[in-house]
Amino acid sequence: MKDLVETTIASKLVYEGKILNLRVDQVTLPNGREGSREVVEFSQAVAVVAVKEDNKVLLVKQYRYPVGEVLMELPAGKMDQDENPEQCALRELQEETGYKPRSIQKICDFYTTPGFSSERMHLFLATGLTEGEQSPDEDEFVKVEEVPFDQAIQMIFEGKIQDGKTIAGLLAVEKKYR
Amino acid sequence: MKDLVETTIASKLVYEGKILNLRVDQVTLPNGREGSREVVEFSQAVAVVAVKEDNKVLLVKQYRYPVGEVLMELPAGKMDQDENPEQCALRELQEETGYKPRSIQKICDFYTTPGFSSERMHLFLATGLTEGEQSPDEDEFVKVEEVPFDQAIQMIFEGKIQDGKTIAGLLAVEKKYR
Repeated sequence: MKDLVETTIASKLVYEGKILNLRVDQVTLPNGREGSREVVEFSQAVAVVAVKEDNKVLLVKQYRYPVGEVLMELPAGKMDQDENPEQCALRELQEETGYKPRSIQKICDFYTTPGFSSERMHLFLATGLTEGEQSPDEDEFVKVEEVPFDQAIQMIFEGKIQDGKTIAGLLAVEKKYR
Repeated sequence: MKDLVETTIASKLVYEGKILNLRVDQVTLPNGREGSREVVEFSQAVAVVAVKEDNKVLLVKQYRYPVGEVLMELPAGKMDQDENPEQCALRELQEETGYKPRSIQKICDFYTTPGFSSERMHLFLATGLTEGEQSPDEDEFVKVEEVPFDQAIQMIFEGKIQDGKTIAGLLAVEKKYR
């Protein structure tokens, strides 16, 4: 695959922010010419498909400022520097929904938008859930919804679930674990 | 859902680029306090699950600079200003693979990363494919692979397909159309 690789000539940090940085790099393209690449640096993240004994999946309703809509999503969040993906999944699930799982397993992982950002998403399946108290971040406002799993799958094709990682996660569990 | 909405107080364009812009906004949070939101403005995009009569799906191998890897992805790309999602899907499929479909239909659409960007992805299923010539963009280097559909699904769980829209698209077709 070496014939596809682009190599960095120069790199400029354009913006350093709270949740992301923006870099603009000059690169050598596979044909030897030069080009520029805009890269949003973003941390790794996790999302959790948490399914209760009664076959309901936990979704969180949340206003997403970049798209100006309230979306239904899997519990999810960015990894802290001192934690691994599984620890992050357990923390985010507890913070956003209050639930703790007896069992948690990796489903798969992927890049959300490899054309312009480095964000890597780790998907988990959590089962054996016991209820507790939510403890969301200070500037995070979420409402938990418990949706029958089959209904959540339908909602993808009805346009009622509009978040990429949520669609990938629900369909991956539907295919592999049910 | 009004109790979840964040309202804009001020907006600052930090970077205006080739494929994306970056904005940093001040907002009023649902609890009345103020916060800041970093928003990557990105155009709408499409991805195409193109399945041949012999049940092979067309994937493109492409070096993704932001993640430093060659990924296997659905043919995809950004919408031009003068086209709708279906026109864009037909164009990108032809440019990247050379194939033209007799039939194309919308599967679903979603936001790829609603936590930090506005990118909206429209997924299509293309069938009845006839072969032609590739005509990629000048700075785009892709190699087409034809993969048996069932094998592509397995590759998701084996970590060989690592692109979010590709995972969502393949699993959506597997669930709804097969």
